[in-house]
Amino acid sequence: MKGTILYGPRDVRFEERDEPKILQPTDAIIRLAATCVCGSDLWPYRGIQPVAEPQAMGHEYCGVVEEVGSAVKTVKPGQFVIGSFCISDNTCPNCRAGYQSGCQHLEFMTGAQAPYALVPLADGTLVATQEKPSGDLIPNLLAVSDVLGTGWFAADAANVKSGSTVVVVGDGAVGLLGVLSAKQMGAERIIAMSRHASRQKLAKEFGATDIVTERGDDGVARIKEMTKGIGADSVLECVGTLESMMQAIRSTRPGGSIGYVGVPHDAHLDLQPVFFTLVRLHGGPAPVRRFLPNLIKLVLDGKINPGKVFDLTLPLDQVAEGYRAMDERRAIKTLLRP
Amino acid sequence: MKGTILYGPRDVRFEERDEPKILQPTDAIIRLAATCVCGSDLWPYRGIQPVAEPQAMGHEYCGVVEEVGSAVKTVKPGQFVIGSFCISDNTCPNCRAGYQSGCQHLEFMTGAQAPYALVPLADGTLVATQEKPSGDLIPNLLAVSDVLGTGWFAADAANVKSGSTVVVVGDGAVGLLGVLSAKQMGAERIIAMSRHASRQKLAKEFGATDIVTERGDDGVARIKEMTKGIGADSVLECVGTLESMMQAIRSTRPGGSIGYVGVPHDAHLDLQPVFFTLVRLHGGPAPVRRFLPNLIKLVLDGKINPGKVFDLTLPLDQVAEGYRAMDERRAIKTLLRP
Repeated sequence: MKGTILYGPRDVRFEERDEPKILQPTDAIIRLAATCVCGSDLWPYRGIQPVAEPQAMGHEYCGVVEEVGSAVKTVKPGQFVIGSFCISDNTCPNCRAGYQSGCQHLEFMTGAQAPYALVPLADGTLVATQEKPSGDLIPNLLAVSDVLGTGWFAADAANVKSGSTVVVVGDGAVGLLGVLSAKQMGAERIIAMSRHASRQKLAKEFGATDIVTERGDDGVARIKEMTKGIGADSVLECVGTLESMMQAIRSTRPGGSIGYVGVPHDAHLDLQPVFFTLVRLHGGPAPVRRFLPNLIKLVLDGKINPGKVFDLTLPLDQVAEGYRAMDERRAIKTLLRP
Repeated sequence: MKGTILYGPRDVRFEERDEPKILQPTDAIIRLAATCVCGSDLWPYRGIQPVAEPQAMGHEYCGVVEEVGSAVKTVKPGQFVIGSFCISDNTCPNCRAGYQSGCQHLEFMTGAQAPYALVPLADGTLVATQEKPSGDLIPNLLAVSDVLGTGWFAADAANVKSGSTVVVVGDGAVGLLGVLSAKQMGAERIIAMSRHASRQKLAKEFGATDIVTERGDDGVARIKEMTKGIGADSVLECVGTLESMMQAIRSTRPGGSIGYVGVPHDAHLDLQPVFFTLVRLHGGPAPVRRFLPNLIKLVLDGKINPGKVFDLTLPLDQVAEGYRAMDERRAIKTLLRP
């Protein structure tokens, strides 16, 4: 089969690879219904994260189980499944505490920008739907695998509650789905920080009550002004730079919470000024597995449409254009059809 | 009167100063029953924090109200009071949220290493006892003002709960009272990291179940070993260096919490490795006012003896020796009698 390989900065190739094979009795192989390009794929694509050797790309996935190893008990061939980008056993103490992204047997999914993918620890990682979902639901279910699960974790980590005032820093797909998540959790006011018309529009569709276009000092001043000088209860940091983190911290009220889910790059945080803000910080790779059953149900019940973040759909063999469109911010997020 | 002035590194003088006067209608003047030297006083004393001009020292205090301004309603002359090192109105939104150390009118107490001290915003800052406490309770009540309140906040910020496994990094007075606080909050296992026999002894008196003498990588390895490879539920960071913070972070389980109360000095935290630990971080200057009523009650009911951290008592005019003894780690904490 052909699959997606990143060779180096801006060098994505769709080329012949071995088909995945069951290697461990806990493995499953799935046939992808859809896959996509993640914001985090752009870090190595842009050369910000070095690529030591050619890398099979793709960690967001849903599809039909083709084959399972002898020890797999909870999913079987023919079932439609969604899994987390974090491979977890879902039985260790960290998983049982709801932190499957800190599983004692944690692996990160790879190679899903392909027609078939290997999913290790299938029982702990995959959730099957009762019926095969209709085609129009596929983008929504694919989103659950990472981008929605991550936005949801940002809101969860930021302690969003009914009536909360929430700020979302970052208008990428994760930030936009952070808005949707905050709305689902009952936030009263959701301020999306965005300066792009198409993203502002989607943020509003997802539940943003206000848009702030300013950044840095001006952005913080605007948030303070909108919150009577206090700051927001919850701030979702969905970028990963030091600047966005400082903007998040300075927009939060004393005792308020920041959920940060953008992988920090070159972000050395001076703790002394942070100390005096009295904020709470929590984040990391999202434990999507914890949220999967609830998020799948919300999608199947038609309560949420997270798949709207896919504003570009391409055949899988045009994956390189999918990366380019996101890199150049022509697309929020690219869905790929095998 | 004479009071304590820091002129520069290791230059503490007890010398003539003006007596405090009521300047604002919300002020009170108190006659100190006792005061003390804080670990944070050692930062400027050691020259790590620059001293731009001579500084009236002291922010931990309890004593009898001498005089109040015309607007003060909740305390009156003759009453025994304890106050927080953070001056707060206790009415603004941040105070009402329990973050008096983020008060919109926040000031930091100064000048309390003296016979008399001015307390601004007396109504919001001071709590009066019903009766004048007996002399043996004074060290315990003095401790509430900052060092216990701060240790308590560390445990509170670290989400210590009944049954928790807790690690305390730092065996200064705050760390030791973090042990006491965790014990009061029902922690099942309290691991104190300390390599000083006298401090280990006090930690055990306060409720530590285990002592770990290793530091850095070895200290983290020891904690991991003691927690089946998982890490602690709650870690109290009571030092303020990058090394102690990293030790705290690496000793915490995914989803676990760090309460940090040591003022960070030269601590630039690389967020990327922190991100992957999935820990929660909360801290800052302790909102002692939130805890005052409860902590005063615990002292008056004889439930806790936080004053045990004072292992050196000196007349106030020997304050310079009080600093020296703490600087040289001959004393955990110095109580000063005016």
